[in-house]
Amino acid sequence: MMNDETMRLVIGIDLGGTNIKAALIECGGGGVVASVSRLTLDGEYVDGVPRFALTVQEMVVELEERAGQGKLRAGLSAPGLARRDGRCIQWMPGRMDGLEGLDWADFLGREVRVLNDAHAALLGEVWTGAGRGCEDVMMLTLGTGVGGAVFSGGRLLRGCLGRAGHLGHISVDGKAARDDFNTPGSLEDMIGNQSLWRRCGGRYANTHALVAAAAAGDSVAAGLWLESVRHLAVGMVSLINVLDPELVILGGGIAAGAGEQLLGPLRGWLDELEWRPGGHQVRLALAAAGEWAGALGSAWEVRGES
Amino acid sequence: MMNDETMRLVIGIDLGGTNIKAALIECGGGGVVASVSRLTLDGEYVDGVPRFALTVQEMVVELEERAGQGKLRAGLSAPGLARRDGRCIQWMPGRMDGLEGLDWADFLGREVRVLNDAHAALLGEVWTGAGRGCEDVMMLTLGTGVGGAVFSGGRLLRGCLGRAGHLGHISVDGKAARDDFNTPGSLEDMIGNQSLWRRCGGRYANTHALVAAAAAGDSVAAGLWLESVRHLAVGMVSLINVLDPELVILGGGIAAGAGEQLLGPLRGWLDELEWRPGGHQVRLALAAAGEWAGALGSAWEVRGES
Repeated sequence: MMNDETMRLVIGIDLGGTNIKAALIECGGGGVVASVSRLTLDGEYVDGVPRFALTVQEMVVELEERAGQGKLRAGLSAPGLARRDGRCIQWMPGRMDGLEGLDWADFLGREVRVLNDAHAALLGEVWTGAGRGCEDVMMLTLGTGVGGAVFSGGRLLRGCLGRAGHLGHISVDGKAARDDFNTPGSLEDMIGNQSLWRRCGGRYANTHALVAAAAAGDSVAAGLWLESVRHLAVGMVSLINVLDPELVILGGGIAAGAGEQLLGPLRGWLDELEWRPGGHQVRLALAAAGEWAGALGSAWEVRGES
Repeated sequence: MMNDETMRLVIGIDLGGTNIKAALIECGGGGVVASVSRLTLDGEYVDGVPRFALTVQEMVVELEERAGQGKLRAGLSAPGLARRDGRCIQWMPGRMDGLEGLDWADFLGREVRVLNDAHAALLGEVWTGAGRGCEDVMMLTLGTGVGGAVFSGGRLLRGCLGRAGHLGHISVDGKAARDDFNTPGSLEDMIGNQSLWRRCGGRYANTHALVAAAAAGDSVAAGLWLESVRHLAVGMVSLINVLDPELVILGGGIAAGAGEQLLGPLRGWLDELEWRPGGHQVRLALAAAGEWAGALGSAWEVRGES
C-alpha cells in the first residue's frame, strides 16, 4: 500500500525536549500513514554528536524504508528560532545543546525545512485541525509557558529573526515584574503553569488542580481562575486588534484540560473587551490536530503542490 | 516632459478628514511628479453625493490631463477598514458620511485600490521613506490617537476585516479604563494627544507643550513624559515579540515634534525591556516619507511592475 505511486509521502519530525515523534505523511490530505516515537535524551552524546540528532537520522531511515519511495523530503519542528533559510535552529539557549546551528539538510542528506515548534503546531492545525480552510488564524498554546503563532493572509508570520508569534510575551500589565524575556506583566506570567505557584501562593499544584477546585466551589480558586482568564482575554483583544484573525485556536495542556471552563468565562470577558466592527466576532476553537500537529506542520512546508 | 512614455504614472489620493491630497506618481521610484490639495468639506453634499467624492473625481481628471497618458490607475487612502477586494471602505462610523460602501472603481471609472490610511502611510514609508529596502517593518503613528500598520515578509498585514495593525489598541495596563475600542489601558490612551488632558489634569494643552516643559526643567512634565514613553516602550516590546520587525518607524505629530526627546528615553526603556535574542536589537527611525506618504502608499498598490 505504501508503495502506491499515487500517494506522495513526506516525513514530518517533531523534535521536543522529551520525545521525538516522526511520521510518514501523505502530501495531499495530511494523513499520518506511519509513525514512530523515541526519547530525546537531551544532553547525551555519541562521538561528539547529540544523541537526538542520531535518533532523528535513524527514524528517518526507518520511515523511508517503510515508504519505499526512495529519498523523501522532511520537515523538522524544534524549539528555538529557525534560521531564515530553514536549514537550522539558529537560537536556542539553555537546553537542547548541539541543536543551535546544526544544518539538518546536510546532516540528513536531503531537502529539509526546519521550523520553530509553535509555528509548526499552528501549520498542523491549519492543515488538518481546527484551522482548516482559514487564511487568518492565531494560536495560543497554554501550558508551562504560553506560546503562539500567527497565520495571516494564508502565510505563516516569521519576522526577521524567526521570532514572530511569541504571543505569550506581550504585556497585559506594564507595571508588573518582568518575565524571562524582559516583558513586564506578560501573558505567560498571568496564565502559564510555571507562574501558578507564585500567583496562588502554593495553594494549587497546577492549573488542572486550580480549575478542578474552582469547579468544585472553591471561591479562592474561582477568583484566581477568573482573573487568569481575564488576563488572557486582555491579551487576546490586543492581539485581535493587531492581527485581525478570523479564528483564535487555543491549545496546550491548560486549554485541553479546562475546555468549557476556559471557553465559558473567556467568551464572557471577550463580550466586554473585544472590538467588534460591524458586529463581527472572532471565532474561538480548541486545538484539534492532536499529538502529530508539530510533525504535520513541519511536513506542510515541504509537501509541495498537492 | 510628463508625456514621456518611459515614465509610467499612477495617481495616489490621500482622502483625510480635513484635506484631500492627490499626486501623479512615477511608478518606478515613487517620485511625486505633480500634486494638488483641496479641502475635504466632510458633511457637504451635492445632489446627494458627498462633496469629497466629487472633489476627488475633479482632482483625478485634472492630474490625468496633466499626465497626458490616457486613463491612469489610482490608489486611494482613507480612514476606516478597507474591503478585502480593495474597492471601498467597508467600515467607518461616525464621520466621513457617505464613504462606507462607496465603490471607487465604479465612481472613478477606472482601476482603483482603496487602502486604510495607516496601511497606506506605512507603504509610503516602505516605498520612499524610512522603510526603504525592508521586509519586516512596523509603524506607530503618535498623534491625536495612536495608529499603526505592519509590513511582514514583504507584505502588508490586512487581516480578515482589514483591521490588522491597529497597534494603538493594545493593552499596556489591563486594569485601566477601556478606550473607544473597548481595550483596557490602551497604548493610545497612554500617549495619544486626546488623552493628555486627563493624564495631566489639564496642566498642558498638548504633547508639544508637555515635551517643551519637560525640556525646560519642569519636573512634573518630565515625569509625565517619561511615564508616557515607558508605556510606549512596553507596547513596543509586546509588538516586537509578536511581529519581529527589523525596524520600527515612529510617525505622527508627537514623534515629529519630540524627535530626540522621544527617541532618547525610548531607547533607554527598550534597553531594559526588549527581548534581544543573540544581542539583536530592533532599529528605530522617524517617519521620513513626508506629507505625501499616504498618497504614495496607496499608489504603491497599483504601480504594477517597475
